[in-house]
Amino acid sequence: VLVRPDRIRPEGGLVISVSDDGEFGVIARIISRLPSGPGVLLGPGDDAAVVSVPDGRVVASTDLLVEGRHFRRDWSSAYDIGRKAAAQNLADIVAMGARPVALLVGLACPGDLPVAWVEDLADGLREESALIGASVVGGDVSAADSVTLAVTALGDLEGREPVTRSGARPGDQVVVAGRLGTAAAGLALASEHGARAMIDVSDGLIADLGNIAEASGVRIELTAAELPVPTGVAEAATSLGVDPLSWVAGGGDDHAFVAMLPPGTPHGFAVIGRVVAGVPGVVFTDAAPLGLAGHEHFRS
Amino acid sequence: VLVRPDRIRPEGGLVISVSDDGEFGVIARIISRLPSGPGVLLGPGDDAAVVSVPDGRVVASTDLLVEGRHFRRDWSSAYDIGRKAAAQNLADIVAMGARPVALLVGLACPGDLPVAWVEDLADGLREESALIGASVVGGDVSAADSVTLAVTALGDLEGREPVTRSGARPGDQVVVAGRLGTAAAGLALASEHGARAMIDVSDGLIADLGNIAEASGVRIELTAAELPVPTGVAEAATSLGVDPLSWVAGGGDDHAFVAMLPPGTPHGFAVIGRVVAGVPGVVFTDAAPLGLAGHEHFRS
Repeated sequence: VLVRPDRIRPEGGLVISVSDDGEFGVIARIISRLPSGPGVLLGPGDDAAVVSVPDGRVVASTDLLVEGRHFRRDWSSAYDIGRKAAAQNLADIVAMGARPVALLVGLACPGDLPVAWVEDLADGLREESALIGASVVGGDVSAADSVTLAVTALGDLEGREPVTRSGARPGDQVVVAGRLGTAAAGLALASEHGARAMIDVSDGLIADLGNIAEASGVRIELTAAELPVPTGVAEAATSLGVDPLSWVAGGGDDHAFVAMLPPGTPHGFAVIGRVVAGVPGVVFTDAAPLGLAGHEHFRS
Repeated sequence: VLVRPDRIRPEGGLVISVSDDGEFGVIARIISRLPSGPGVLLGPGDDAAVVSVPDGRVVASTDLLVEGRHFRRDWSSAYDIGRKAAAQNLADIVAMGARPVALLVGLACPGDLPVAWVEDLADGLREESALIGASVVGGDVSAADSVTLAVTALGDLEGREPVTRSGARPGDQVVVAGRLGTAAAGLALASEHGARAMIDVSDGLIADLGNIAEASGVRIELTAAELPVPTGVAEAATSLGVDPLSWVAGGGDDHAFVAMLPPGTPHGFAVIGRVVAGVPGVVFTDAAPLGLAGHEHFRS
């Protein structure tokens, strides 16, 4: 029997691929890595999952992650891709002021993908979800030429009204919750600080605030000097001759939360601006960052 | 300005592609075709949708449809692909005994895909969902080399216990609900006839009943002579020298429902067998169809 050289592992033995295992084998491997957390009444393995949403209103969001567009297998580990996929979908639920409970994950992939890649992906999905108490409750696996992930997140409103994009009111403070523990911080903004409008920053701070300004019919004034610049970003941008604030204000894919809080709210978050009456839009009260750019698919 | 010949429509004018419109333009076109039905508290346009599930338990299922695997654009219209995508996901919810309420749809597609194709897809999704009172409440659009659909369906249990695969008991009748109005028929099996176990036939009747036999720890006896053969199937199979019953019993992708009902239940469905105690599995009490085959991805 001839064995393709790329199937021999450096440490000995053979690489097991998705097609070696077959659809049901791969699904069994994935499920074994995904224990059900609180609120999961029926996990993977039946026609559908059953998840507890005591509020009686379920919050639901779907995102696609396409290989070559949203991630590259030669740049990112499967574990990191799984964490990112979970994080961005959980963030959408939190941005509505809901507690994430469950993820469903569709995986389309080539038959020669090593099953170890799929297992690492499942580990990343599980661990990111566990940070906020959610778990993967179901999904689908299909053959395809490249890897595509379709992640759906479900959440419970716990009696709160959803925090949409249309709730911003003149006088509100604009606050931002940074990268670390973002989901928990976002939930705190909604549940403890009474956020009137909230969004997770995925298309860029300015673009996403622009959506809130338009949906709420308000003007949002930002102060560039108050924008938090993460460690390392200033150095990296400056070395490339770029205004670091243009990355902070214009870059997408941050998955921080930006919320409008009523005035006088106690806060432990960075206040970066305020909501005023006026023509809907986002403006800077000081010098705007140079070279701002947003992000849109199909246009680059 | 040069125009590619394939961009000129036979009836005059230019084909508008997804990349002409941009991500947000395409999303706006889709949303305009997807009015929210009952139970939708917040439809498309925010970070996530909000759907009413008064039961407090949401039933959720995800399926992928990959171009070249599950459909071909040169064989099926976008409208039919939309209907199929909706139908198979709604069926998963019904197979749990829940009423479908909402769909979320992720669409990955090439930038040169005509927007008219996307509009037809949205029409198919909408019309199939409307048959059972569900609506499309959200989704995502991304660029990709080929078309992939990721559909998530959500449903409400309306106070019923979920109809899983493990509820079949010796003495139960095995009944099947056919193609026409399947979702409504499936829901009737669960809510009026007290189905103890139910599955939608997607991998083939025998394979799917095998899952129930294993999950319930029972033996399922079928009578081949009782299997309903849809109009046209007998002729088509016979002309190819194939036993028509092998298609009925082994073919996948039917999206009929097969349920185990307690004995003595009034029924208007085809009874095709019964549940007995014994080694888990599916057997025929008469001559088994010739050349039975199931269906599994990554293996063909």
